[in-house]
Amino acid sequence: MELTHIEHIGIAVKNLDESIKYYEEILGLKCYAIEEVKDQKVKTAFFKIGQTKIELLESTDPDGPIGKYIEKKGEGIHHIAFHVNGISNALKEVSDKGIKLIDTKPRRGAEGLDIAFLHPKSTGGVLTELCEEKK
Amino acid sequence: MELTHIEHIGIAVKNLDESIKYYEEILGLKCYAIEEVKDQKVKTAFFKIGQTKIELLESTDPDGPIGKYIEKKGEGIHHIAFHVNGISNALKEVSDKGIKLIDTKPRRGAEGLDIAFLHPKSTGGVLTELCEEKK
Repeated sequence: MELTHIEHIGIAVKNLDESIKYYEEILGLKCYAIEEVKDQKVKTAFFKIGQTKIELLESTDPDGPIGKYIEKKGEGIHHIAFHVNGISNALKEVSDKGIKLIDTKPRRGAEGLDIAFLHPKSTGGVLTELCEEKK
Repeated sequence: MELTHIEHIGIAVKNLDESIKYYEEILGLKCYAIEEVKDQKVKTAFFKIGQTKIELLESTDPDGPIGKYIEKKGEGIHHIAFHVNGISNALKEVSDKGIKLIDTKPRRGAEGLDIAFLHPKSTGGVLTELCEEKK
């Protein structure tokens, strides 16, 4: 598997507007996109820092994955996404090595990336996303 | 404040050797350093991916910060560290804006960096480290 960089860090937030304010006014980053991902029941806000994006995630539904996460664990870092060359082969490779997958095939994520999640039970509690820019 | 990149992601693990095996054999990264940080009661292992390091943290003492974290929340992503130009000025700036600091002055962290933590109560639940390479 060829990981190239950390594509983004996903952060679960209760209130997107307030969190955008923190990342802009305190940390000095700039929100360059807001996007709703309906099948994940989230509204997202993106910031770029070096090679990596910060993806803020606000739930649009208490029963969505981020709504449930915040209810259980509170706001905070939700997942880490590695950019990989050849996501389908990478999923097959880690699955063959015994890693449990949430997504057995890539699906379309925010910003049009192909994405898939590995199960945190197989990754030391770290919800791990693999993603690849479409060529 | 001038953040340049995500310097590292800190991940709390129960067993450093087992976690190193996961990051090397499954994700294909290479552990390039293991270091004990005695005043933080942790043993750390470092991997590089693009601009960013993964820092695995195993507690050397159940009463240390990582030991307590794992007891409360389990293994997982513990903190995010942003590299900043001018860490002392950055701390003053965010403090003046009302952010609660864990470290009011930079201290020496792993790999000889100057580091300081912001309090997660001020940062939307994200334990946030600022750090700067010594010039």
